[in-house]
Amino acid sequence: MSKVTLLIHCPDTSGIISAVTSFFYKKEGNIIYIDQYVDVENKIFFMRLESEFEHDLAIEDFQNEFNRELGTPYNMHWEIFTSGSKLRMALFVSKYDHCLYDILGRYKSGELNIELPMIISNHDELRPIAESFDIPFYHIPVKKNKKAEAESRQLELLQKEHIDFIVLARYMQIVSENLISAYPNQIINIHHSFLPAFAGARPYHFAYKRGVKIIGATCHYVTGELDAGPIIEQDISRISHSHSVKDLILKGRDLEKIVLARGIKLHLERKTLVYNNKTIVFI
Amino acid sequence: MSKVTLLIHCPDTSGIISAVTSFFYKKEGNIIYIDQYVDVENKIFFMRLESEFEHDLAIEDFQNEFNRELGTPYNMHWEIFTSGSKLRMALFVSKYDHCLYDILGRYKSGELNIELPMIISNHDELRPIAESFDIPFYHIPVKKNKKAEAESRQLELLQKEHIDFIVLARYMQIVSENLISAYPNQIINIHHSFLPAFAGARPYHFAYKRGVKIIGATCHYVTGELDAGPIIEQDISRISHSHSVKDLILKGRDLEKIVLARGIKLHLERKTLVYNNKTIVFI
Amino acid sequence: MSKVTLLIHCPDTSGIISAVTSFFYKKEGNIIYIDQYVDVENKIFFMRLESEFEHDLAIEDFQNEFNRELGTPYNMHWEIFTSGSKLRMALFVSKYDHCLYDILGRYKSGELNIELPMIISNHDELRPIAESFDIPFYHIPVKKNKKAEAESRQLELLQKEHIDFIVLARYMQIVSENLISAYPNQIINIHHSFLPAFAGARPYHFAYKRGVKIIGATCHYVTGELDAGPIIEQDISRISHSHSVKDLILKGRDLEKIVLARGIKLHLERKTLVYNNKTIVFI
Amino acid sequence: MSKVTLLIHCPDTSGIISAVTSFFYKKEGNIIYIDQYVDVENKIFFMRLESEFEHDLAIEDFQNEFNRELGTPYNMHWEIFTSGSKLRMALFVSKYDHCLYDILGRYKSGELNIELPMIISNHDELRPIAESFDIPFYHIPVKKNKKAEAESRQLELLQKEHIDFIVLARYMQIVSENLISAYPNQIINIHHSFLPAFAGARPYHFAYKRGVKIIGATCHYVTGELDAGPIIEQDISRISHSHSVKDLILKGRDLEKIVLARGIKLHLERKTLVYNNKTIVFI
Repeated sequence: MSKVTLLIHCPDTSGIISAVTSFFYKKEGNIIYIDQYVDVENKIFFMRLESEFEHDLAIEDFQNEFNRELGTPYNMHWEIFTSGSKLRMALFVSKYDHCLYDILGRYKSGELNIELPMIISNHDELRPIAESFDIPFYHIPVKKNKKAEAESRQLELLQKEHIDFIVLARYMQIVSENLISAYPNQIINIHHSFLPAFAGARPYHFAYKRGVKIIGATCHYVTGELDAGPIIEQDISRISHSHSVKDLILKGRDLEKIVLARGIKLHLERKTLVYNNKTIVFI
Repeated sequence: MSKVTLLIHCPDTSGIISAVTSFFYKKEGNIIYIDQYVDVENKIFFMRLESEFEHDLAIEDFQNEFNRELGTPYNMHWEIFTSGSKLRMALFVSKYDHCLYDILGRYKSGELNIELPMIISNHDELRPIAESFDIPFYHIPVKKNKKAEAESRQLELLQKEHIDFIVLARYMQIVSENLISAYPNQIINIHHSFLPAFAGARPYHFAYKRGVKIIGATCHYVTGELDAGPIIEQDISRISHSHSVKDLILKGRDLEKIVLARGIKLHLERKTLVYNNKTIVFI
Repeated sequence: MSKVTLLIHCPDTSGIISAVTSFFYKKEGNIIYIDQYVDVENKIFFMRLESEFEHDLAIEDFQNEFNRELGTPYNMHWEIFTSGSKLRMALFVSKYDHCLYDILGRYKSGELNIELPMIISNHDELRPIAESFDIPFYHIPVKKNKKAEAESRQLELLQKEHIDFIVLARYMQIVSENLISAYPNQIINIHHSFLPAFAGARPYHFAYKRGVKIIGATCHYVTGELDAGPIIEQDISRISHSHSVKDLILKGRDLEKIVLARGIKLHLERKTLVYNNKTIVFI
Repeated sequence: MSKVTLLIHCPDTSGIISAVTSFFYKKEGNIIYIDQYVDVENKIFFMRLESEFEHDLAIEDFQNEFNRELGTPYNMHWEIFTSGSKLRMALFVSKYDHCLYDILGRYKSGELNIELPMIISNHDELRPIAESFDIPFYHIPVKKNKKAEAESRQLELLQKEHIDFIVLARYMQIVSENLISAYPNQIINIHHSFLPAFAGARPYHFAYKRGVKIIGATCHYVTGELDAGPIIEQDISRISHSHSVKDLILKGRDLEKIVLARGIKLHLERKTLVYNNKTIVFI
């Protein structure tokens, strides 16, 4: 048995759903998930579909045929994934360990269906954690005027290990255009505020100063503009005047790790589709 | 232009989605919403679809053709609604006024796309509210041994006014089988607890006694078994040890009115499908 | 029996709690609520206390004595309220009716312990609602170059009716310094975003554009800087990519009315204390 | 400098707050937290107070004096804790690892101010996790007719290691009266439902069957009656018809670990007070 996941977006026109579902029916696929969305303003059609096949699928033939019959005629951007191979993830950290512990725990307990061949950090402090979980740890310091150098070492490692996507688990550095363009919509960050409020550094300090009654966390894809990429997931937690900045930081830890984990899972399960700096999240 | 909403459930088999969407394509319908769900255990397929047509639709012909080509072959339970006519709702109340005020405000401001030809109550206290909103108010007392009599008066009124569905807005009476069978899955109740906890009378008292840290409200369809019908919507609110029963009742008012309003809207928009004492809610 | 509520803030020093509680004990008061907060950074002490007395209290003597024994020595800002008299509230609205309906329903059902002698609006559309609830309605148009004129008519009315505090229930005008200084920390606004995100006009449009996964509402005291006053209460609601701006506006209505109502109640019950553009909320 | 935390409950009478705060003032303590609660029905007074002292405190003298001046006269149950020593916690697990990973991560990152000298399990599967975190792991099988034997081995270990409190982190066994009476209100359990709904085994299966729209988790102290002990903390997560039992189990993992961690912290920080099978939680 095989299973494929299809993601498409294309100019909206009538008959797409019928054409796509008929194609899968003809191929003897059983559709177990279908969802679509139309951006009415921009006339764009988006769709996610999962289908099971009782027979083994020659995936390349399938993709070619899909492209010929549907992709090209409908001018689609499409992706067809099979469930066979695990995505390879790289984890970037600095000194905070709560998201690291959380992701490693989920990884070890089988909750995340990934390969995790490396943790990269600009500091050496978290190495013992990586080692206790048996994950290779690379300390790549990022010095003031030698950021480009550090990033080229990072890129080399990422490519050598065939990394598919990157998770910044409270990595306290701004990643540069170079890395972003090598992994477009494949770098996931957790920001410790409900964006767009409190973008940039020290959001808990500013939240405290403003006297908000809720704090938040935002998981988003990284783009060239700081904390302005497509949002995957957000959540919040109630606070009161009695919470100090230190309390907010502590309370925020749980929020950050939960929201980041949800974002990673949505990405892994191919439930996100980025368009126009926004994220379609099929659930 | 016309718009139809289709709800179906039938034995699960492959090709249904393709068949249905092709039917709508052939009829020149533009599908603007599609969602489906398969109860894998019981092998039942559920689907909701919205389609727009540029031309006016002869709805009876359309329904007949749908039934011939799809309904009968696939052994479907199906419903096709047009957006033309408003549902006619009856409101049952007793002495609590918060849900009543909330629904009337929503009705008057155009938030609920309904006709509201009657409010029925077993007490006369809320009559002035009905009158200030210009809604006919019927006081039908429910006496100990004359419940059947009261219900037959209710039924008579409901039928005379061609009522489509009933909302029990903190109506403090148990409705009998007679009414329920006349309106199967068409009577919506709000219960002031997160069911199945605290079914029956005085849930806030029992919540206080148990020392829970959250209270809830549940909107559900009424069935013969008290507070055990298919759940449409639930929500909760945090409380603490410092809240008295009176505080819970007060805090619960907002919860009750919001959850009930959400349930009414889901029902109105044909987003609910009842099966096996559970509710499929398409959102 | 009488009941008083005490609110104080003063430079932090040791012994305040002991001194205050001893004062109430000496006066035969039974303390039924006490909460305090220290702004450690600025060394300010805040406290809220409720006390019941079995005898009738000569409130002016009590206040004088409190001031002599505690207020002056500890350099306190203090307020002592009795439960006797109701606060008089003015409601400002424009064309949106959902918060208006909600507040009027709460008022009529006795949920808000206030007098409500007036609704002021820059438009005449909502007059029928005011009339159906028997509340005097004043239509004071606010024309481009004659805002000052309109505000002086407002102020005149407010003073004539001895208004204690003002609620802007989706009043779509910026109120000027003149009104703000007449009612410092006594004008409550509801803003339809989780501030500080999306301050200013059309927050739902900007939320949609940014692709956030949560929308919010913020109840705050009005200050000279737009949407930057002390926050009383906030809450949020989850949304998805599939929600249009119109959906957000609809979904936001419930959020706005609930958050505004909570803010009004906190203010009414003397549970808020403003300091440094932040709100201490004693709950 | 020293810091003490005081917890009391006693028959309600006037003057307690004044008497207690005066005592601390006399002792040159600076009160940094005070909260109280009165169970009006049963006329019981509860209070939590934190005080800092610039000098070192002879804690036994302090306690004796407190008891003589206040404890005995007011008939108080009181506890005075110093911040000096860490509580010693034992962790009970079976085969589920998500709560275990979460607690160990928090422990290692310094978020939990405890000693953790042992993990006890009725199965051997999780031993490698304990070892990778360097925590002694004791495999004590619980066989059908030899439960008493297993428990006496557990008790022996607990006493040998001077364990203060026990956390059942998805320990799938019912603990017996013997253990409970040795650790009254000192055994913390996480139950995977919003109690009192779905007490007992397989709550996610029953939640699925009932068709609820929210699932929950409850952290509570263990008493002789299954899942009926004093509730410390609860939280919920929204679900839909489309979630299978397996989905609920997965979704519930995050809920369980967060709610359990919150409960542990409240216990650790002496913020809970048990009375009448309910928990006063001072926050």
